[in-house]
Amino acid sequence: MLSSLLYPASVAVFGASRTPGKVGYEVVANLKKGGFGGAIVPVNPTADEILGLPCFPNLKAYGKPVELGVVAVPTKMVRSAVEDAIHGGAKAIVVITAGFKEVDEEGAEMEREIERLCTARGVKLVGPNCLGVINTDHAMNASFASHMPKAGGISVISQSGALLTAILDLAASRHLGLGKLISMGNKAQLDETDFLTALATDEQTKVIVGYLESIASGDDFIRAAQQATNRKPVIVFKAGTTTAGVKAASSHTGSLAGADVAYGAAFVRSGVIRADTFESMFDYATAFAMQPLPKGDRVAIITNAGGPGIMAADAVENAGMKVSPLGGGAATALASKLPAAASVGNPIDVLGDADPERYVMAVDAAQDDPDIDAIIVILTPQAMTRPAETARAVAAASRGEKPVLASFMGGADVMPGRDELAAANLPDYTSPERAVAALRAMVDYATWLDRPPRVITRFGVNRRRVERIIRRHLKVGQLQVGEAQAKAILDAYDFNVPPGQLAMTVEEAVDVAERIGYPVAMKIASPDVIHKSDLGGVKLNLGSPDAVRDAFDLMMMRIPQRVPTARIEGVYLESMVGRGREIILGMTRDPQFGPMLMFGLGGIFVEVMKDVTFHIAPITKEESLQMLRSTKSFALLKGVRGQASVDLDAIADALQRISQLVTDFPQIVEMDINPFIVGTVGSESIAADARITLQEPEA
Amino acid sequence: MLSSLLYPASVAVFGASRTPGKVGYEVVANLKKGGFGGAIVPVNPTADEILGLPCFPNLKAYGKPVELGVVAVPTKMVRSAVEDAIHGGAKAIVVITAGFKEVDEEGAEMEREIERLCTARGVKLVGPNCLGVINTDHAMNASFASHMPKAGGISVISQSGALLTAILDLAASRHLGLGKLISMGNKAQLDETDFLTALATDEQTKVIVGYLESIASGDDFIRAAQQATNRKPVIVFKAGTTTAGVKAASSHTGSLAGADVAYGAAFVRSGVIRADTFESMFDYATAFAMQPLPKGDRVAIITNAGGPGIMAADAVENAGMKVSPLGGGAATALASKLPAAASVGNPIDVLGDADPERYVMAVDAAQDDPDIDAIIVILTPQAMTRPAETARAVAAASRGEKPVLASFMGGADVMPGRDELAAANLPDYTSPERAVAALRAMVDYATWLDRPPRVITRFGVNRRRVERIIRRHLKVGQLQVGEAQAKAILDAYDFNVPPGQLAMTVEEAVDVAERIGYPVAMKIASPDVIHKSDLGGVKLNLGSPDAVRDAFDLMMMRIPQRVPTARIEGVYLESMVGRGREIILGMTRDPQFGPMLMFGLGGIFVEVMKDVTFHIAPITKEESLQMLRSTKSFALLKGVRGQASVDLDAIADALQRISQLVTDFPQIVEMDINPFIVGTVGSESIAADARITLQEPEA
Repeated sequence: MLSSLLYPASVAVFGASRTPGKVGYEVVANLKKGGFGGAIVPVNPTADEILGLPCFPNLKAYGKPVELGVVAVPTKMVRSAVEDAIHGGAKAIVVITAGFKEVDEEGAEMEREIERLCTARGVKLVGPNCLGVINTDHAMNASFASHMPKAGGISVISQSGALLTAILDLAASRHLGLGKLISMGNKAQLDETDFLTALATDEQTKVIVGYLESIASGDDFIRAAQQATNRKPVIVFKAGTTTAGVKAASSHTGSLAGADVAYGAAFVRSGVIRADTFESMFDYATAFAMQPLPKGDRVAIITNAGGPGIMAADAVENAGMKVSPLGGGAATALASKLPAAASVGNPIDVLGDADPERYVMAVDAAQDDPDIDAIIVILTPQAMTRPAETARAVAAASRGEKPVLASFMGGADVMPGRDELAAANLPDYTSPERAVAALRAMVDYATWLDRPPRVITRFGVNRRRVERIIRRHLKVGQLQVGEAQAKAILDAYDFNVPPGQLAMTVEEAVDVAERIGYPVAMKIASPDVIHKSDLGGVKLNLGSPDAVRDAFDLMMMRIPQRVPTARIEGVYLESMVGRGREIILGMTRDPQFGPMLMFGLGGIFVEVMKDVTFHIAPITKEESLQMLRSTKSFALLKGVRGQASVDLDAIADALQRISQLVTDFPQIVEMDINPFIVGTVGSESIAADARITLQEPEA
Repeated sequence: MLSSLLYPASVAVFGASRTPGKVGYEVVANLKKGGFGGAIVPVNPTADEILGLPCFPNLKAYGKPVELGVVAVPTKMVRSAVEDAIHGGAKAIVVITAGFKEVDEEGAEMEREIERLCTARGVKLVGPNCLGVINTDHAMNASFASHMPKAGGISVISQSGALLTAILDLAASRHLGLGKLISMGNKAQLDETDFLTALATDEQTKVIVGYLESIASGDDFIRAAQQATNRKPVIVFKAGTTTAGVKAASSHTGSLAGADVAYGAAFVRSGVIRADTFESMFDYATAFAMQPLPKGDRVAIITNAGGPGIMAADAVENAGMKVSPLGGGAATALASKLPAAASVGNPIDVLGDADPERYVMAVDAAQDDPDIDAIIVILTPQAMTRPAETARAVAAASRGEKPVLASFMGGADVMPGRDELAAANLPDYTSPERAVAALRAMVDYATWLDRPPRVITRFGVNRRRVERIIRRHLKVGQLQVGEAQAKAILDAYDFNVPPGQLAMTVEEAVDVAERIGYPVAMKIASPDVIHKSDLGGVKLNLGSPDAVRDAFDLMMMRIPQRVPTARIEGVYLESMVGRGREIILGMTRDPQFGPMLMFGLGGIFVEVMKDVTFHIAPITKEESLQMLRSTKSFALLKGVRGQASVDLDAIADALQRISQLVTDFPQIVEMDINPFIVGTVGSESIAADARITLQEPEA
């Protein structure tokens, strides 16, 4: 995958220059300085030689095929450079030059042309408007960033070139090994999906780190990310999380689902580890690159100072992991080797005057103990402390079976220790809290790898009937499916809906009520009235023909007063539904990631507490139950104070049926079942109200 | 305050040693190396001279009075060294030696003796079991930590000596200026309250940073902290937040208030800025020490790279501050000076090739604009970037009117810039997120300084009546005050309680019901039945004598079955209360901080969502309203979907009355009013149920 881009035998630099500081000079210089082993071919019609390399006016003049072209000519000349590269045999082209889509429509058009040129010839294109590409495994720095990092297992994809320069600079200072670094620029052709796919099978790459501002195709991303996360950890920092405008939405589900929620759901769905800060990206990546995954979340803390030990213990508990004491035998054995004042609880306090040997004894005990999954080693620079020797000793004792993360706290005094840790592949953090956060990411990823296989249930449903209803609505351009028809759709997907019928006149309403039996509920039938009960459009428990007549007449009087533009189709009558917990289930179609299912407890839980969760369809039973469990109000479903649990499987079943419905029918763009009434196990769950919004699917 | 400790004219070192590595050697060496200007008097009966200083067997032999004594002798000899110091004129003593309270009861007794010796003679005592004391303003390093930091405005109080060594090491590497550093050790006499008070008026100290594991006296701490925060920012990292055991509690309020909640309430009450991580302590302190406070929360972001600018904007919004664009005129003016591709929105993007001048123009524009309160400057090391010059230029342009915080991202390439920033007192952070978090702390502190004066309302109440009820209960050792008497107490403090009365027999119950009028509610009266309704101890809406008889007989049958140990006093009958929103109000007395008032919405909001807030009594009206506003469910009180707001002032009034009640009566250790029913403005709020727990106050 992308071998011509990442492992080319030869590189041509278009716009190679003799002037230091110019991009075309820096790229040639960086290729040389990085020790690139293949041919470097500077292309510039006005120079004979650059940095000791013969220079050519174009690739024709060079005469031999070149595998990778790097373009750093002025914007207007990019097109002809790309053509020259293609004719010269390039299988991959990196356009560093800016001035395209990011500037104006003319630039966008030039960018599309370049993309078409490349795609038509099967040539891979990176950029334009990027920093270039680095591959330490091939000694290739085809970028204008001057740092050639140490080779290592962390590969980076970035939508910001400047951020990549900061990362390179940081990695150099931290002695951090990097693999491939790809600046994606405007993503005219290759984007995060392609690079994820390529790096997933790249042998050098142990961890993939991505900085993304947008995702080109949600579906493709999820697919590629999931394939990648099955092989290695993928850490993504998604910028621009708060500024996304809220789109107009006609459902609860739609109004609660911002773009950031969708990204979050996509990352959960595909096992991507989300980094919330710039620093956490590398904190996590370092841990993954250097240490084995933990088998569980029981953490031993080893420290030479009480305070930082407590800090670490707080952080472990706050992160939802366990501060786990050594088993009885192991604790006693360790205690017999340490001074009397030491503590073999957890944190294990080896005391302020601890020498490297004491650290090693504690690390050994934690490694021996089957009840410990991960180890955090804390050191503060006290009078007798030997940071460098301690680091070497801990590194030598570490067996690579359980993750060992260190926090050597301080500045210059501990720096020799930190350098030793880095050299020995022991990740080190400036505070215990950061070490713990990285460990939490490792535990989460280990859990992801251990997940059960995803099995999507296909329910037997009446798909034809739904097809007919949707076709009828779209034919007349009616995109809002009212309650009666929405319930018919749900009925076809085997939801329980209360028996009911539409009535246009007062006497028809009485007839319907008589037939389905009192008491009945009456609801206004209008695609334009959304919050029906707020507007007097719902009457419950009507027990007699007179009550039905009164309610009908009042509704017909009030609704037109309150919503003068409302088209009224009549009233919908149905038998009163039983009692139970009110749930809201829904779906909104995210422009990037497609159908997102929503679950929440009804009423205030959704409207005030925003206690809802989303998941990208299709969904498995286990994922449905996970949605329920991830709300704060889950305790209510399970029953508080001795109440019986509601039928959780019924809710999971309903979510899976919605998943199937919206996967079957892309015309459905939003839906709410509100309320979905669910009782105790064994009782019947009912879709008591529903609304569906359609859209002509794009061709 | 503490001048003999912090600014002594002379220092005696007991246990001074000629052996490098020994504490008694290091202290003398550090005093010398630090440049201490006064007399340094080594005390050691077996040496004549130490580090070129004449050594004395005791202070008597020295002959002149010494102001500060530092004790580093073996544990058993500490007592006589302290005596010698006192006789030799010491007004303050620092005991570095360990082996006291932290070891065993014998050590604790020795510690108490030393404390008594000092306190009896009016001598200030630090420690034992500490690192020592450093004062850069007096060139005094009276500790065994080898780093003498650069002088600066950040003073540190630490309950962990090892953490102080890490802080000193870190500060040295970051060129961070420090003022006083005090290692508190076992806090036998002087504790955080004393040091807070001293540092509050210390001229050198601009910011106080505290690392605390416990607080000796809650009341004193709050008083001292509030006095300090009125003068300068106080940042506290409180370790041990999650491990505190949950104490047995007989009220909702008690069970929801952990120790960490109490610390949080105490910090809010006294304006202390809480740091949640080791790194944030210094991130915040640096900002406060170096920059002026912002006047508001409108932030301008200046960057040479899009990605990090978005990161910063996300962080600003997530922190609840405003990413505020320049005003129209200012934006146009700036745009005319910057290249066309630059963005003068917010973030202000000065482009990847920005020179120092461009940064200065943007900083000037943000400083000129009255709509900007704070400025964040981001730099990534791109090809044309000049970090050091940019740092110098930005520092020179900064006028000290609005806070300017920088994030120069990267490693060695930006380090010269970071050093320039540190030298110029511009705080610099390794990521935009950390700069934003520090700015948020500044905005919070500025808001605290601007708070309205605290006015505690004293209500006219019937205190005598409450006294009588409490005395009666305590006399017979009955600590649980049942509903009837609890309501009598509330009535005396002018709460509305439904008319009602206790009845012992079935006919008495009917008589009471007839008198107060049907329908009535009946509740079991027993100090041992807490969740009355769960156990069949509540019947509502009893409309007739027969209904009262049935309910009485059932309750008398069932309660003894369900709670065999329950003492039953009869049933409490009262008129049915009107409808409204159910609130829970309560109080629990924290062992450290005294009465903590609680507010939450009733039922699931408290029990499942834990959506409650606490505040330390006494409380003002504004603080009461702030409690309401800080719950998630506040929107429900204000009314959703066009509902009218409930009477917020009535709730605030009730909280203030509880505050007065529990301040008047320290015997009350826990209470719940659950539910407190509050209607719309103008309606009557009612304490529908209440329970109070008493305790013989300590003498």
